[in-house]
Amino acid sequence: MSQSSLPETSRAARIIARCRELARISDVPGETTRLFLSPATRDAHNLLLGWMRDAGLETRVDDIGSVRGLRRAASAEAPTLLLFSHIDTVPNAGAFDGPLGVLLALAAIEELCTQSLPFHIELIAFSEEEGVRFGFPFLSSLAATGQLAPEDLQRKDSAGISVADALREFGLDPERIAASCPLPAGSFAALEVHIEQGPVLDAANEPLAIVEGIIGQSRLSFNFHGHANHAGTTPMSLRHDALAAAAQWITAVESYASARDPLVATVGRIEVLPGGGNVIPGDVMATLDLRHPDDRVRWEAVAALQTAAEQAGATRGVRVTSTLRSQQATVPMNRALTGHLERAAARTGHTARTMFSGAGHDAMILATHVPTTMLFVRSPGGLSHHPDEAVREADVEAALATVLEFVRTLPAA
Amino acid sequence: MSQSSLPETSRAARIIARCRELARISDVPGETTRLFLSPATRDAHNLLLGWMRDAGLETRVDDIGSVRGLRRAASAEAPTLLLFSHIDTVPNAGAFDGPLGVLLALAAIEELCTQSLPFHIELIAFSEEEGVRFGFPFLSSLAATGQLAPEDLQRKDSAGISVADALREFGLDPERIAASCPLPAGSFAALEVHIEQGPVLDAANEPLAIVEGIIGQSRLSFNFHGHANHAGTTPMSLRHDALAAAAQWITAVESYASARDPLVATVGRIEVLPGGGNVIPGDVMATLDLRHPDDRVRWEAVAALQTAAEQAGATRGVRVTSTLRSQQATVPMNRALTGHLERAAARTGHTARTMFSGAGHDAMILATHVPTTMLFVRSPGGLSHHPDEAVREADVEAALATVLEFVRTLPAA
Repeated sequence: MSQSSLPETSRAARIIARCRELARISDVPGETTRLFLSPATRDAHNLLLGWMRDAGLETRVDDIGSVRGLRRAASAEAPTLLLFSHIDTVPNAGAFDGPLGVLLALAAIEELCTQSLPFHIELIAFSEEEGVRFGFPFLSSLAATGQLAPEDLQRKDSAGISVADALREFGLDPERIAASCPLPAGSFAALEVHIEQGPVLDAANEPLAIVEGIIGQSRLSFNFHGHANHAGTTPMSLRHDALAAAAQWITAVESYASARDPLVATVGRIEVLPGGGNVIPGDVMATLDLRHPDDRVRWEAVAALQTAAEQAGATRGVRVTSTLRSQQATVPMNRALTGHLERAAARTGHTARTMFSGAGHDAMILATHVPTTMLFVRSPGGLSHHPDEAVREADVEAALATVLEFVRTLPAA
Repeated sequence: MSQSSLPETSRAARIIARCRELARISDVPGETTRLFLSPATRDAHNLLLGWMRDAGLETRVDDIGSVRGLRRAASAEAPTLLLFSHIDTVPNAGAFDGPLGVLLALAAIEELCTQSLPFHIELIAFSEEEGVRFGFPFLSSLAATGQLAPEDLQRKDSAGISVADALREFGLDPERIAASCPLPAGSFAALEVHIEQGPVLDAANEPLAIVEGIIGQSRLSFNFHGHANHAGTTPMSLRHDALAAAAQWITAVESYASARDPLVATVGRIEVLPGGGNVIPGDVMATLDLRHPDDRVRWEAVAALQTAAEQAGATRGVRVTSTLRSQQATVPMNRALTGHLERAAARTGHTARTMFSGAGHDAMILATHVPTTMLFVRSPGGLSHHPDEAVREADVEAALATVLEFVRTLPAA
């Protein structure tokens, strides 16, 4: 009995089982923690390389540590379709953030079996997406697109080991990154399947979404400078309470964004000085994370929330300063390819909504070099970066059917 | 030229100079840090004992380390007036919080010179008020009033040394506390002079205040249990943001108290988990410090602000729990003695307002055993527990004149 004749649920169950098998390979017993080039990474590579070879792929590990498997077309001059996601994890991760995209793509290639296609398919399991070990994400997709700067190889992990040294210790050659990592010259289309990592599909009870783009982001820090004083001896009217000002601003951030869906605005970190229960807060530092598909709306929100902070401070004699820590423009997915993916989903019976990704993905890095699109699979409970991260078998089957339809009907460039 | 014929400003200048001389005795060079029974405390004792002896007082150090000086009346059976404050400091303290009350009282005794009074005067420089070393305040006034529990002697400092061992190391005998520390049996009145440690007099441009009581206090901790999630992928409408709930509550705390002067309410400490800039806060812990002269108003405020927290949580699917950590009823100063102090101030040309102390003082401990009152001296800038803590010479003179008038006109019980 060939794999393609298995009942549909079994195809999805096998993908999920493989994700869980990979998740058991961890640097920390009892959980899934597999940072970039960690000791467990070699076992993960070997497991994945074995599956790829069983599927008939030509395999290799490039010099940034990504696992790559090639399914050749009849013609050597054929262009290349890229199917990709990542296999590094956050600490104490789930089984699906990254691996699902890799193993669903592998299952699709297995399903294609001997079917002739007018393009090569390269399956890429990127080695570094989460940015945990070196505090900097997308190392391997940046290497694949020629965007990894020499300085990035000098970034150090918490043990003081540089990226370059970590590569050498793993048996790789940082000098050969430019030679072994780039995407094939004839790459004409790229597709990443990934869990949504959010609650939108779960709330709407839908299995899939087509990703229009990765939304732009601004990160700021705000400082509220008031005046620390005795909580018992200072009347309310004579206070310059930095936390009261920050609190008013935090509620303003929430209500501003709530009125402007799909804007999301988050104050995730706050530090209060001096921090005694009986001392009026003199200084507060708070972060702001703002995201919206339309960069102009985001810029407008930055300005409005800076003004809101200053106003919250002004009524309390609290001085407010803010600093833009980082910003990143919205990266649209390729419109034609995204339309093709949407029609593929529809033809397999899934009317997948289009949505923006609020999280960053390797697809964002590849999109600037290759026409790229992305398929989201529902995250039950909206959960990710958590051991309880899950997928539903029926959703995985819907994604697999969609990817197969996408690949089988994709015209070579 | 006798001291009493010095110009008035010089009397105050001398008190201030003595406070500053005492402040130079520190365990930490370059700042004033003199915790309970620290090495520098012995030098402080010797300086103070010398001044007391020069003023004709019979001196001793009791077995909790308080320095005591007695001015005898003609009759051995006369009752005793207590003048007191403390000589321990917070870390990196100013020169006046505590020592001003001791050295102003000493100057008053010096001014009395040979004047006959119908009562003894005992000047007590309490050894422990701030609660820094053992994380527990008022050790010496508790000992003086027989309220120090045996368990309190087993409290340990950050080096693991118990109160009892610290006393022994200093050459004192914890077994003799009950014998050497109690207030004289005939104590009939007690007066503490202290800096206000708040901005009320400074804002009103007034030198002195008569303290009606030490206001009661409730301390609570609040926990907001929401749901941590991805800041980019979770729409505003699907969030359970614990910090947004806490922020709404913090603004409610501020506006509730502001509308109910003299209620003061402070959120001084807040902790946010997980605390990543790109993660919606799942859990927040915040403290609440509430103070009001009327205990019933304070209890009502506790209930109202618990309800406000629950409401702020309810609209966001954030569960709120709160815990009462400590509470302390308002301690009124003795009404007759306070009236006497108020009239003394008025007769010396100072119409001192009456006010409640928002901070705790040894006077609060003595008040339950002896008729007690308290005089506040303006804190410029409202500053205390800070190296820049100051007093104005004219204010100190006003306080000295008031204390002298208070003592000279006080009827023996």
